[in-house]
Order: sequence, then C-alpha cells, then structure tokens
Amino acid sequence: MESLGIGLIGTGFMGKCHALAFGAVKAVMGDVPTPRLELLCETPADKAAAMAGQFGFARATDDWRALVADPAVDIVSITTPNRLHHEIAMAAIAAGKHVYCEKPMALTLHQAEEMAAAARAAGVKTIVGYNYIKNPTFMHAQRLVQEGAIGRIVHFRGWVDEDYQADPDLPWTWRARHAEAGLGALGDLGCHLVSMAYGLAGPIESLVADMQTVHRTRPLADGSGEAAVENEDVATALVRFKGGFHGSLATSRSAWGRKNRLGWEVHGTRGMLIFDQERMNELQLYENQGPGAQQGFKTILTGPAHPPFGAFVPAAGHQLGFNDLKVIEAAALLRAIAEDSRPEPDFVAALAFERVIHAIAEAAHTDRRVVI
Amino acid sequence: MESLGIGLIGTGFMGKCHALAFGAVKAVMGDVPTPRLELLCETPADKAAAMAGQFGFARATDDWRALVADPAVDIVSITTPNRLHHEIAMAAIAAGKHVYCEKPMALTLHQAEEMAAAARAAGVKTIVGYNYIKNPTFMHAQRLVQEGAIGRIVHFRGWVDEDYQADPDLPWTWRARHAEAGLGALGDLGCHLVSMAYGLAGPIESLVADMQTVHRTRPLADGSGEAAVENEDVATALVRFKGGFHGSLATSRSAWGRKNRLGWEVHGTRGMLIFDQERMNELQLYENQGPGAQQGFKTILTGPAHPPFGAFVPAAGHQLGFNDLKVIEAAALLRAIAEDSRPEPDFVAALAFERVIHAIAEAAHTDRRVVI
Amino acid sequence: MESLGIGLIGTGFMGKCHALAFGAVKAVMGDVPTPRLELLCETPADKAAAMAGQFGFARATDDWRALVADPAVDIVSITTPNRLHHEIAMAAIAAGKHVYCEKPMALTLHQAEEMAAAARAAGVKTIVGYNYIKNPTFMHAQRLVQEGAIGRIVHFRGWVDEDYQADPDLPWTWRARHAEAGLGALGDLGCHLVSMAYGLAGPIESLVADMQTVHRTRPLADGSGEAAVENEDVATALVRFKGGFHGSLATSRSAWGRKNRLGWEVHGTRGMLIFDQERMNELQLYENQGPGAQQGFKTILTGPAHPPFGAFVPAAGHQLGFNDLKVIEAAALLRAIAEDSRPEPDFVAALAFERVIHAIAEAAHTDRRVVI
Amino acid sequence: MESLGIGLIGTGFMGKCHALAFGAVKAVMGDVPTPRLELLCETPADKAAAMAGQFGFARATDDWRALVADPAVDIVSITTPNRLHHEIAMAAIAAGKHVYCEKPMALTLHQAEEMAAAARAAGVKTIVGYNYIKNPTFMHAQRLVQEGAIGRIVHFRGWVDEDYQADPDLPWTWRARHAEAGLGALGDLGCHLVSMAYGLAGPIESLVADMQTVHRTRPLADGSGEAAVENEDVATALVRFKGGFHGSLATSRSAWGRKNRLGWEVHGTRGMLIFDQERMNELQLYENQGPGAQQGFKTILTGPAHPPFGAFVPAAGHQLGFNDLKVIEAAALLRAIAEDSRPEPDFVAALAFERVIHAIAEAAHTDRRVVI
Repeated sequence: MESLGIGLIGTGFMGKCHALAFGAVKAVMGDVPTPRLELLCETPADKAAAMAGQFGFARATDDWRALVADPAVDIVSITTPNRLHHEIAMAAIAAGKHVYCEKPMALTLHQAEEMAAAARAAGVKTIVGYNYIKNPTFMHAQRLVQEGAIGRIVHFRGWVDEDYQADPDLPWTWRARHAEAGLGALGDLGCHLVSMAYGLAGPIESLVADMQTVHRTRPLADGSGEAAVENEDVATALVRFKGGFHGSLATSRSAWGRKNRLGWEVHGTRGMLIFDQERMNELQLYENQGPGAQQGFKTILTGPAHPPFGAFVPAAGHQLGFNDLKVIEAAALLRAIAEDSRPEPDFVAALAFERVIHAIAEAAHTDRRVVI
Repeated sequence: MESLGIGLIGTGFMGKCHALAFGAVKAVMGDVPTPRLELLCETPADKAAAMAGQFGFARATDDWRALVADPAVDIVSITTPNRLHHEIAMAAIAAGKHVYCEKPMALTLHQAEEMAAAARAAGVKTIVGYNYIKNPTFMHAQRLVQEGAIGRIVHFRGWVDEDYQADPDLPWTWRARHAEAGLGALGDLGCHLVSMAYGLAGPIESLVADMQTVHRTRPLADGSGEAAVENEDVATALVRFKGGFHGSLATSRSAWGRKNRLGWEVHGTRGMLIFDQERMNELQLYENQGPGAQQGFKTILTGPAHPPFGAFVPAAGHQLGFNDLKVIEAAALLRAIAEDSRPEPDFVAALAFERVIHAIAEAAHTDRRVVI
Repeated sequence: MESLGIGLIGTGFMGKCHALAFGAVKAVMGDVPTPRLELLCETPADKAAAMAGQFGFARATDDWRALVADPAVDIVSITTPNRLHHEIAMAAIAAGKHVYCEKPMALTLHQAEEMAAAARAAGVKTIVGYNYIKNPTFMHAQRLVQEGAIGRIVHFRGWVDEDYQADPDLPWTWRARHAEAGLGALGDLGCHLVSMAYGLAGPIESLVADMQTVHRTRPLADGSGEAAVENEDVATALVRFKGGFHGSLATSRSAWGRKNRLGWEVHGTRGMLIFDQERMNELQLYENQGPGAQQGFKTILTGPAHPPFGAFVPAAGHQLGFNDLKVIEAAALLRAIAEDSRPEPDFVAALAFERVIHAIAEAAHTDRRVVI
Repeated sequence: MESLGIGLIGTGFMGKCHALAFGAVKAVMGDVPTPRLELLCETPADKAAAMAGQFGFARATDDWRALVADPAVDIVSITTPNRLHHEIAMAAIAAGKHVYCEKPMALTLHQAEEMAAAARAAGVKTIVGYNYIKNPTFMHAQRLVQEGAIGRIVHFRGWVDEDYQADPDLPWTWRARHAEAGLGALGDLGCHLVSMAYGLAGPIESLVADMQTVHRTRPLADGSGEAAVENEDVATALVRFKGGFHGSLATSRSAWGRKNRLGWEVHGTRGMLIFDQERMNELQLYENQGPGAQQGFKTILTGPAHPPFGAFVPAAGHQLGFNDLKVIEAAALLRAIAEDSRPEPDFVAALAFERVIHAIAEAAHTDRRVVI
C-alpha cells in the first residue's frame, strides 16, 4: 500500500488538527502509508476552496455526500458538529470507506451502536478521536501498569475539567441544547476520561452518579431574554470496575482556571501513577521500593524512551504538543489499514467508552445504580 | 482569668501535640489565659512520671479517673485510643471540666451524640481536634469564600489520602477491628475532610457512597495466620450540600505515596480555590478577573497577612508546621473559656462532621441515598 | 508572492524539524507564502532519496552545492553539523538565497561575523534557529515586560541545563573536540539562554565568567583508551546589562535530570516573571498589586490569548510542543521575505547572542572582565 | 547535667523563636538537659516584665550586662540588632557563659574573628542561628551526598531571595545603613546560603562577584526627603570550592514574590539534589539509576525516616515549620554542653560562612578574584 486518499469534512478546531496530522504523519513516522490530501469539504464552497489551499488539499467541495462517494477518497475524516457524525459515518461505511470520526461518536447511544454495528459488518477500519490515549506519556503509564510497576490496581480516580462554560454571563449556544449537542460536559470531556480509565483500569461494571446544571439559563446573544441550558455542566460517578476495585470519575465544564485538566490517579498495591493533561509530558510515579527515606513521587519527563516520542524529537524534555497526539492517532489508523489490524479505539471500542457517559447520565437522572 | 489547669490523658502522637501546644500557646499568642501543666495520665505509672518530666507537667498519674476528678485540673485533654474517648469525656463533663478531645469523638454516632448532649447540658466548653481547620491558610480560604472572591459556590471536591495501610504485607492491628477502631479511613482521615468541607461549603444534605476494603485480611504479627480487616480502606461519596450544589468526598488509607494528602477544590461562579495539606502553607486562587491573557492560578504563600500566622513568625514564607496548628487549636479553647464563647468546633459542631462519615458508611452498605 | 522553494540540507534532529515546519506552516498560519519542498540534501544519495520521500520533498541530492545553486530553491535551510554552517551559508548568500541556519551560527565568532556581513551586503533574508524565543509563552513575557507589568527590570537570572553529557562513562564524540564542535555547553545550550536574555532584558555590556570541564577525558568508543574533552561542560557568567542592572547566566550539559531546563527569572520593581522550558506552556507572574493577602505567583497557561497559539489550537491548556516552535520560526522567515522586513533573529541579531557566549569563554579563560 | 539556665536578650522575631525553642525542646526531644527560662532582657523594663510573663521566663531585666552576669544564667541567647552582637557575645564569653547568637555574628569580619577567638580561648560552647541547616530535609540531603547517592559533586548552585526591600517606595530604615546593619542582602540572607553550601559541598577557595543596590535612595519616613541606601540589594558570586568544582551563589532582598526562597542544586556525577526552603519539607532527588524510561526527579516528603523529624511528629507529610528548626538548633547546643562536644555551627564554623559574604562584598567592590 503506497498511499491513501484523505477526504476531510470540517475545517474547525478538529478539522485543522486532522489536516495537520495527515500532513505530518509520513514525515514524522516514516513507516506508514502516505496520506494524499484529496478532498476537503466545507461550506460555503468558496471557504472550502480557500481552506483546501491553506491545508494543502488537492480539491474542495461543499457537499459531504460527494466527498463520501469520491473514488479517490479512501479515508473519510469527520470533524463536523456532533449531530452530523452519525449520518456521515453511516454513509461513509456504506460506501466502503475507512472512517476517522471525532468524539463523541453520536448524540445518542443508539446511534453509536448503529455505527459500531455497521462498521463491523462492513469490515472497514474506523477510529474515534480519543487522542489523549495516544500520548506517549499515557502509553508509558499503561505499560507500567501492565508490567506491574504499581502492583495490582486497588482504586482509580479521574477528573476532567475545563472552564469554557464557567462564566454565568456567557450567551446561550447550541452546546446547551440536548437535541444538538447531546450530553454536556460528559460528551465533551467526560468521554475522554473514560477512554483513559479503560486503557488503564479496564471496563466498568456499574455505577451511581450525580449531575448538575449549575447555570440553568443563559442570556440569548441577541439580548431577547434567557434560554434554558438542557444538559449538564458537572457530573460525577462512583464506578465499580470489572477488575474488582472501585473508583470515581468527575467532569465539569464550569471549573474556573482549568483549561484542559484531564487527570487521574491509579492506586496500586505497590505504587501509584498520576497524570495531568495540562502537563502532558510528565508522569508521576511512586513505587514502594528501596529505602523509605528515599521514596517519593518521581516526575518522569517524556522522551525518546517513551515511543513514539522519539519520532517527533530525539531529545527528552523537548515536549510534544496537542497536535502531535493527532499525528499519532492518524498513524494508528494508517497502520491498521496497511496491516489489516484493528485501530485503537475503533467504533466498537469507542462505543464502550460512550456507554459509560450515557450510563452516568441515566444513573444521575434515576438516582439508582446502573449496570453497564 | 489568670491561668487554667491542664490534665492530659495520653502521651502518644496526639498526647505530645497537646503537651507542646499547651506549652507554647501563651508565648505564641500572648492574649490567652496561661495554661498550667498540672497533671499527666499515662500507664504504667513510671512512664507517666517520666513523660511528665519530659513534657513539663507538675504531676503524673496512671488513673484517668483521678485526673478527671483532680481539682487543679480545669481542662481535660483526651488523646487516648478512640474507644476510650466516650467514657472519659462523659466523666470529665460530669465533673464539670472543659474537654479537649481528639477526633473522631467516639466509635459510634450514638456515643458522639451522647457526648454532645452532655456537654451542652453541662455548659462546659469542648473542642475536638479538627486541627486542619485551624490552619491560617484554611482560614484565609474561608474568608475568601465569604467575601465572594470566587463568587457563588457551584461544586466542591475533596480527598484525603495516606498510605499507612497501603502495604498488603503490614501485620494486622486493632485499627482493623470495628469494635476497637470504629470506622477505618473515614474515621481516621475522612472526618478531617468533612470538617473542611463544612467550613468552606456548609452542611451536607444527602449522599450516596461506595466503600471498599482493599486488603481484606492481614497477616497476624505472630505468624499464626491471617485476620480479617473489618473496616474500610477506601470510601467515596457523592454529596449534595444544603447550599444547592453538589460535590464529592474521597478517602483512602491505602494510597501509596500520599502522606497527608488532605485537599480540596472549591469551584465558584467567579473563581476557584485549591488546597493540599502536604503543602499546608500554600493556597491556590484563580479569579476570573483582569485580562484573560494574565489569568492563572495564584500560589499564595501563607504569611502575617493571614492571621494568626504572624503570632508564630512575622515573615511570610517561613512556614508553619503541623504542631503549630495544635497551638492555634489550644488557643481557641482557652479564649472560648476566657470569653465564655463557643469554641470551634465544639462537640455539637464536630458531631455534625461525624454524622457525615457514618452516613457515608451507611450509604455504602445499603447502596442507597442517605439523608443527613 | 505565491510560494517559495525550500532546499533543506540535513535530515537529523533539526533537519526533520525544518521539514515538519515547512510542511505545516501554511496549514497552521494561512497568511504566509506557501513553501514548496523542492530539494533535500543528505548523504549518501539513497538516504537522501528515501528521506525526501518521507519528508515530502520533490527531489533529493547528496551535494549541498547543487542544492545551493538550484534555481527552484529560494530558501536554504542549514541543519548540518556546526562546522559546515559557515561554508554553506556563505555559498547560499553568494547565490542570492535566503538562509535559515541552525544555531550556533558557526564555530568561531569570526566566521559568524563574516556570515552576518555577507548577509547584510547581499540583502538576503536570514534567520537563525533560536526557536525558544518563538514560544508564545516567551513572547507574552516580552509583552508583559514592555508594558511594564513588572516595572523596571532590576535583575535577570538564567540557566540552561541538560544531562546529555552527565554520565562519566559516555564515550568520547566529536562534540568534545574544539575544532569540530566549537564551544561545549555554551554553544549547544548557552546561546539559547542569551537569546532569551536579550529578548527580555536587552544587550549585555560586560561580564566575568567561570567555566569547567567536569569530565576531562572520556573513553573512546572502540575501547582503545581515553581522549580529552576539549570544551566546557559547565559555564557561568555574571553579566551587566546595558540597561544598568546585573544578572547571571549559567549552563551545564552535565546536569543529571535536566532534559531541557532553559529558564529564567526577570526581577522588576513591581513584579517578577519566571519561565522554565520544561513546562513551556506556563508562565509565572508575580505582581505587587491588590491586597497583600492575595498576592502570589500566578501560573498562566498559554492559550489563544497569547498569539500565535490560537493558530495551532483554539483552546488554552491544549499545549504546543517543541516542533510547533519551529513552525512559528519558519513563518517568521516566510513573512519577512513576503513583506521585505527583517526576520527575528537574523544573522546580525544572532551574532550579538553568539558574541556573548564567546565573551563568556574568553572571560573564563582570562579570569578577567570582558567588555562586549 | 539536669538543667541549664537560659538568659535571653531580645524579644523580637528571633527572641520569640528562642523562647519558643527553649520552651519546647525538652518535651520534643526528651534526651536533652532541661532549659530553665531564668531571665529575659528587653527595654524598657515594663516590656521586659510583660514579655517574661508571656514567654514563661522567671525574671526580667532591662540591662543585658546584668543578664550576662547573672549566676543562674548558663546560656546567653543574643537576638538583638546585629550591631550589639559583638559586644554582648564578648561580655558573655568573658563571663564564662555559653552563647547562642543570631546570625550574622557581627557587623564586620574583624568582630566575628574576635568572637571566634574569644570563644575558643574561653572553652565555652557557642552556636550561631544558622537554623536552615537544622532542617531534617537538609540533613537528609547531607547524608545522601555523603553516602554517594549523587556521586562526586561537580557543581553547586544556590540562591536566597526575599522581597522585603523590593518595593521602591518603602521608607528608609537602619537596615540601609552600613554602620548599623553591615552588609545588606548578604548579611541578612546570603550567609544562610553559604551555611548550606558549606554543609553540602564544603569550603570555598576563591570567588569573583557582582553586587548592586537597585534602590539607591529611599524616602525618609517623616517625608523630609530621601536617604541613601548604603548596602547591597543584590549580590552574586562565582565560587570555586576546595573540592575542585565550581558554583554560584546569589542573593536578593528585592525579588518580588520570593518570601524565603533559599534554595540550591547539587550536581553530581550520578544524580542531583534540589531544595527550596519555601517547601522546606520536600527534597528533590534524581538518580541515574534503573531504566531510563522511569528516571525522574523524586519529591521526597520529609518524615520520621529523616531524624529528628519523628521527635516532632511520627507521621510523614505532617510537616515541620520554621520554629521547629530553632528547637533542633537549641537541642544541638544543649546536647553539646551536656556531652562537652562542639555544637554545629559554633563561632569558629560560622566565621567561615561569614568570611564568604565579606569576600563577596570585597570581590564585587574590587572587581577582582578574592581568595578566602
């Protein structure tokens, strides 16, 4: 396999990330098929053309159906608003394309289930943009857990907080409407945390939860009044893992000062691991090892000893950034296509993450334990 | 009131703290009655005498009832194992003494309720050793919340972790037996967190919880086998505050690397406050104020601007230590006696904290919401 | 100007960085001329061809003179070992090419002076790879200093440490030979610090210095004995700035645990700024402002409020990485060519930085104050 | 030796520290002679009496000569303004008393030399208040260095900064007058750093230095004009240790945001140690040991594994404060008297520290290397 044609839908935050990732991945990694930037979809058409020029795509369109149908397109990258994910992904799968879809997969769990089933049936490769689990720092943590550096896991605690909805005076947007955004903080942020929890501690069995909309109405941008916020600002769950230990997951989009505070602690019988995405090139490791007087949390700076960091920079301490995570994610998809293996996380794996956020919402609404 | 006679029962960790606190409080504060170190109780008698010499007490006894009855004793300090708190406190109150009791107040909530009722009826002054709320850093956080520095509270998160029961190979002790220790992590650690949550965010209305004994048996010290651990290593609760917002409380005594990780975040509509007891002279404050490009969490080093820090050292950055908190606590009791006011937290206030840890245990056992 | 042809010499650490930067800069920034990846030079020829394929260059060569002479090449990127910088740059300038040269400019100050003079005479655009001053965090610090956020500067302290030569058992390499590497830690690391010092605090007037080779010999890789290390592992200088205040600069390549510890403190009459490249998305700011009880160092997380961060990611806390700095650097060169302005830092500006490291070496050798 | 009579001169910052230390040391340590708080000297006499009551001294006086001559006084504690240290210490030594003197020993090196000579001749025990080297965290660092945890030392960097003279508008005080205060930042702060450098890295052989008064005049408190600041706000030195390695020492009393930033790095062939007094219960240790992917700086929280921490609190993470350091210092003096050994640092040892700060001043004034 020499090269793969990329069709990208969307040019916002994630659209640019995908464009940059496909633009860089061959130079960074070397051993992946070369992505050809074939077709970019945006509306209106002149914006599509302009962005294609900027992003280095060969052609542009304002019709995502045309993109999905285009024979030069092997991979469809979906970075549209969440409410379109399902329809586009289903069409792309039906057209036999591989799909790179941003998270959350869909507005409802039902839609996500359909997507996973369709992808499995069609045999195409899929990947969902759970980019934080592509961080070499995270993958090193996973290896440490697997190798027993902290013993058997006894507890897991995670949180993911931002402040983009912290200001009570922010105007109402579509993000506050259930029909357009689906879940609130859980869909935007919480699912990322679940992806990390699964990667470190495995599947969750059941949970109880609490949820709150702290700013119940927001002013309309046109000054004509207030509109209701229909989804949650804050959610917290007490979870029980299949592995027999407990934990908690928390998320807030109204946490002043937190910009990308996606973090966790894994408590083990022999040590602990701690991570915070706001310092994404650092891992904290405590091992009950050696003389007590010298024990302490070690701050490990990510470097070439933590693959694939070295593909970016051969020197520790030089740091990867957020966009580099998308490069690793794109490489994972390209490699899976080349090797006919299963990308991580494909629609089936990602569905498991998203089941959890929907279960949290259900548990919070019913004030009862939900078994997953 | 010129001076008050102190009778101290116990010379362990907390006993020494009380002795040091009463020994230093007059020199530090100046404006408190002078404590006279009258009588020290320990067993056996020769140890009592030796420790009285070391701690500077005038007399020693091996009989706590004699101490409680001693006419020169105005204040009875109880630093015995938890199972004796109730009996001694009830006797001291009956003898008309003021009581300084370590936490938790008692093994059971029922005992604690009796103690609170007896103290209220007798009109004596009481205080419970919730020393972390005596930290000038904490008291500054309280002031900031009260003055609206972070707006209206929208969420509270707290945790308190240590690792003294993290090692699976540690031998079994009385701490693992319900009848002697009462609750596990909740009683040792969790109640401190509750005291801080109440001080910052007010009373809790209801909660759900999860709890786990991660090391279910421990080897007997004599090598004769294993014994069951009867109380919890880890507990977590989702709480709803009377103030209308939610939060979570977590505690573990099996968290490797955590030595005194008692911390919390208070999320507000205009900012956030963060604290960690392992850096007890620092407070993190984020305010949504001034240009966005200059916003960030501020690390405030405690100093004379945060009373009563200046009574210890007139220079910021010079740091208070754990024992200094007990001096502030002792001062609170002495002042309340002198002014005939209510010390903070007296048995009634502390009972409210302890209700919460028992409610957490109940919610975890029943897997149902408990209203407090 | 629609596009500019790039000729890149070298495919090592910095070669890859340049390739990635030119590959991404248009997509990231939008408003720059499009770089065309025309020609890649490496030896031997088959490696050149392979790397051209990986990096996305149209053609490959093993002859840098051919690259310099190629009419499709507008910009010559020099990422070779230091000893070749001078010869290639002089040839490129003579051929009328713009030059993007890695630091240090040359082995000797004399060579660097020639390069600066030639570039100025030829009127071509040049830029030297002092990428750390392209960090949005750094540029924000510069703005804060200029706007008076910390008042008048009264002191500057900087350090730049790594540990790549810390291990006494590391075999001898060309880096240890003066004729090939020039200076040691000063040339590799110290000059970066100078670039930041100049950007924040302006030019240095005079200095005294100390310097040391801590590992005086190293084992030859072939086991045949030991060879001398001819340049410094550690250097420190006390500097006097033209602005009338003092400071210090320190560098070590033998500092265990430091991976990219390039940091500084700027002390002002009204505040302080602190930075550490190992946390390159954070800036510490202290302002003597507001109530004393609320003062503290603020940790500002870089974000869209700090241009051009937003061109990479529209969300704070998502972090830039090292390679992103090279994108900003490449953009600076492309823009300067398009606008016929002076890139920062061109050969003339960079020469000023490099004068300082040579002055430090001279001051250390002579144990006397050196005026710059 | 059952007990020792204490005569304390001064009741300011350090006076209170000494009083608290002597009041607590027996209870904390157990195995020291009991200090009897005999006599307190302050002016005027009524203040002396009041403070004696607060501090728990048996008697008060306003005449330090009477105190020095008092037969019940075995130890004279000198916490007066610096200009009186020499006269009082000489009188106390002449009277055969042991002396506990705050730092710096005297205004001039000549005076300090006299004091050291007199103490040695008289055979009395002396100790100077270099309390930071009494921190269990520091003593643990010393042990680690001695045991080779970081290999052979190759470099030392230290700094000690505060901001008590940072504000340009602060009124002029006696601290700015050479005749009353002696040196500026060097005398207040720098000498503490030297004490730590000596404790970790041994004696200094020679140095060059730079020094600056950043606020050259200050307003008189009565508004009648400005007065000159006669001593330095900032000083920095490049030092060469007798051990064959280099280092630097820096101090500022005009460093905004720094409250007690006394810190250092010890670079070794196998690792590094880092300390910051503003987090005095933490030590950073990097060891080149084990797999590279797991290396990092370890944050060791001081605890019972670091004697004599456990004498204060038997649990790690509970933290010592500044005043506890004075207790350890007082214990060192009491033990040395009891055992007829040499307290650390006595006048002779402290003289070596103070030689360095005077050498820094001289090197800065002459712009030449000074051999110590």
